[in-house]
Amino acid sequence: MRTFRVELGAQAHPVHIGPGLIARAGDLIVAAGLDSTRCAVVTDATVAPLYASPLVESLATAGFEPALIEVAPGEQSKSLHTAETVFEQIAQARIERSGFVVALGGGVVGDLAGFVAATYLRGIALIQVPTTLTAQVDSSLGGKTAVNLRSAKNLVGAFHQPRAVIADIATLSTLGEREFREGLAEVIKYAAIMDGPMIADLERDMDAILRRDLSVLEAVVERSLRHKAYVVERDEHESGLRRILNFGHTIGHALETAAGYGSFLHGEAVAVGMVAAARLSREFAALDISDEARLVSLIERAGLPTAIPTRWRELGLLDAMALDKKRAGGAIEFILLRELGHAITRRLTLDEIVAHLS
Amino acid sequence: MRTFRVELGAQAHPVHIGPGLIARAGDLIVAAGLDSTRCAVVTDATVAPLYASPLVESLATAGFEPALIEVAPGEQSKSLHTAETVFEQIAQARIERSGFVVALGGGVVGDLAGFVAATYLRGIALIQVPTTLTAQVDSSLGGKTAVNLRSAKNLVGAFHQPRAVIADIATLSTLGEREFREGLAEVIKYAAIMDGPMIADLERDMDAILRRDLSVLEAVVERSLRHKAYVVERDEHESGLRRILNFGHTIGHALETAAGYGSFLHGEAVAVGMVAAARLSREFAALDISDEARLVSLIERAGLPTAIPTRWRELGLLDAMALDKKRAGGAIEFILLRELGHAITRRLTLDEIVAHLS
Repeated sequence: MRTFRVELGAQAHPVHIGPGLIARAGDLIVAAGLDSTRCAVVTDATVAPLYASPLVESLATAGFEPALIEVAPGEQSKSLHTAETVFEQIAQARIERSGFVVALGGGVVGDLAGFVAATYLRGIALIQVPTTLTAQVDSSLGGKTAVNLRSAKNLVGAFHQPRAVIADIATLSTLGEREFREGLAEVIKYAAIMDGPMIADLERDMDAILRRDLSVLEAVVERSLRHKAYVVERDEHESGLRRILNFGHTIGHALETAAGYGSFLHGEAVAVGMVAAARLSREFAALDISDEARLVSLIERAGLPTAIPTRWRELGLLDAMALDKKRAGGAIEFILLRELGHAITRRLTLDEIVAHLS
Repeated sequence: MRTFRVELGAQAHPVHIGPGLIARAGDLIVAAGLDSTRCAVVTDATVAPLYASPLVESLATAGFEPALIEVAPGEQSKSLHTAETVFEQIAQARIERSGFVVALGGGVVGDLAGFVAATYLRGIALIQVPTTLTAQVDSSLGGKTAVNLRSAKNLVGAFHQPRAVIADIATLSTLGEREFREGLAEVIKYAAIMDGPMIADLERDMDAILRRDLSVLEAVVERSLRHKAYVVERDEHESGLRRILNFGHTIGHALETAAGYGSFLHGEAVAVGMVAAARLSREFAALDISDEARLVSLIERAGLPTAIPTRWRELGLLDAMALDKKRAGGAIEFILLRELGHAITRRLTLDEIVAHLS
C-alpha cells in the first residue's frame, strides 16, 4: 500500500493506493479518525454485486453500522432527483452529524455521494472509495462534488474534501475495456500539463498499462494523484492554478453536452478536447508541432479518440461552451500547453476558437 | 440607515437596516463589491407584486441585469424540486461565476435562494433582502441555507454567507398580523438567551412594537441582528456557542414536523418550544420560577401561543425529535436558561424531556 497526505490545513487527509484495500477500508476509516457508528455506503447497481459485500463487512468488523444505498448506474443518476432519494434513505437510516458517507464507485457515484455528504445536515464526513481508473486518478481527490442540470453538466455542487481516499487498484481488473481506457485520458492530462518526463514513461509503459499490470498501475495512479494533490493544495477552490486541470475539458464538456450525455464517455470527450487544445496551443502558446504530434500519438496508443468532429458547429458545441461554468465575462478561460509538461492559461473568445478549429 | 459589519474574515460583510432600502439596494450591492452584470432576484408570488419592481429597477439603475425568478409562496417551496426549477432558470439566464443571487422575501425564500447560491457553480455570491420580521431579525444573517426533505425540515443545506444583508423595515408594514407576530418569537429569543435588559425593554416597548412604530422596530431589528452576529462571528459553523440560538427550536421544529408543516408558523412553534424549554430550565438549570413566568408572559403579550400540546406524545413529537439534526450520539443537545439573558447547553435524553413535560 502506498500512502500520502493531501495537505489542506483542517481538511488534510490521507490517500491510500494498493490492491485489496476495500477489505481493509473499515480499519483505514477508523485510522482517519471517524468513530460514529452509523454510516451510509452509496454505490450503483454495477459496482454493488462486485464490491459492496466486502466493504460492508469490513465496516461492520471495524464497529460501524453501514446502510447500503444503491442508485442506477450511469450519468443520469447525477441528478437532484437521485440525490433526493439518497437523502431520504440517509435520513431513514438516522445518520447523524457525526456519521459519514462512503462513495463506492466511479465518478458518478463519487460526485453524487459527495454532493449528498456536502449538503446533508449542511455537511457530514465523506470517504471516497473509487473503483474506476478515472475516479482513482482524478475525481476522488480534490473535493469537487456535483450533480447535473438539464442545461449542462456539474452546474450544481459544492467543495467538500473527503476524510480519506482509498483507491483499491484490484478493482481496475473488472473494468470494461472502454471504461478502463477513458481513465487514461486523465493520466495523460497530468503528464501533459505538469510532468514532461511522465510522457516518456507513459510511452514506455503503455503496453503494461493496457494489460493492466498492477504494479505499473499502482505507480501510475499514485503519480497522477500526487500531481492532483499538488495542485489542489495550492488552489483548493479553483481561483487560479487549479484551472490547469481543465486542460481538454472545456471542449470535452461541450462535446459531451452537445452529443448528448453518454455518446462519449467523459474521458473520450476529454481526449478529443486535449487534441483540440493542443492544436490551439500551437497557435496561441507556440507549442512545437512535434510535441503536439507526440501527445496525439500517446492518446491514440491509449485507444482513445482524437478526431475533432468536423461538423461540430452543427452539434451545438458553441452554445454548450457559452454555458460552460468556466466562462467569465464573455471570453473563455482556456488551458494551453507551452510545451509538454507545462500548461498556461489564456482567455480566448469563441471566435478565436472557431477560427482555428474549423 | 443603521449599518454594521459581521466580522467573518474573508466572509465579512455589511448589514444595513432602515426604511426604504429596497430602492437603494443596487447602490448598496455595488458598495459591497459586486460588479458582474447578470444576477437573479429570487422571490415568491406574495412578495413579487409588492417589492420586485423597485428592487429590479434599483439593480438596473446601478448597472446590473437582473433576471426575476418567482416561486410559489410557502414552506413547500423549500424543496429540492423547487431548487431545481430555480437552478434551471439561473442557467438559462446565463448567470456566471461572478454573478449573484438576491433573495427577496421571508425565511423560505432566503433559505431556498441561499441554498441555490451556495451550490450553483459550487457557490456564487448571495445578497439577502429579507422582507419579514423573522427573516430580518434572524434567518437572513448567519449563512445557514437549507431545503426540507419529506422526513424533516432543513436536512439538506450549506453554510454560505451573504455578501450583504439589506433589511428594509418599511416592508414590515405590509406583513399580516400573524406573520408579524411570529417574528417576535426570535426577538424574544435573543433577549432570553443573551440580553437580560432587553427583556425589560421589550416589556416597555411591546405596544409600540405591535403598532409597528418604525423607529422602535429599527432599533429592535438592529439589536437582534447584532446579537446574532456576535454569536455567528464566534462560531460560524455551529460547533459550540451558536447552538444557543436553538433555544426553543428543538421542540419547536419537532412540533412543526409532527403537526404537519403549516399548522404552526415557525415562530409560533418556537414560542411553544421556548415555553417548554423554560419549564425544563427550572428542572435542569435552576431557572427561577418568576423568570419563567416573566418569559411566558412576554410571549403571551406578543400574541404568540404558549400552551404545550397536552397530547404531544400522540403527535409523534418524540419521533420527530429523534430525527432532529441537532441530535448526536442518542441524547439531545438542549438549550436551557440559567436566568433571563443567560443560556446554557445540557444533553438531555428523550426520557428526561418526556418526564418533565407530560
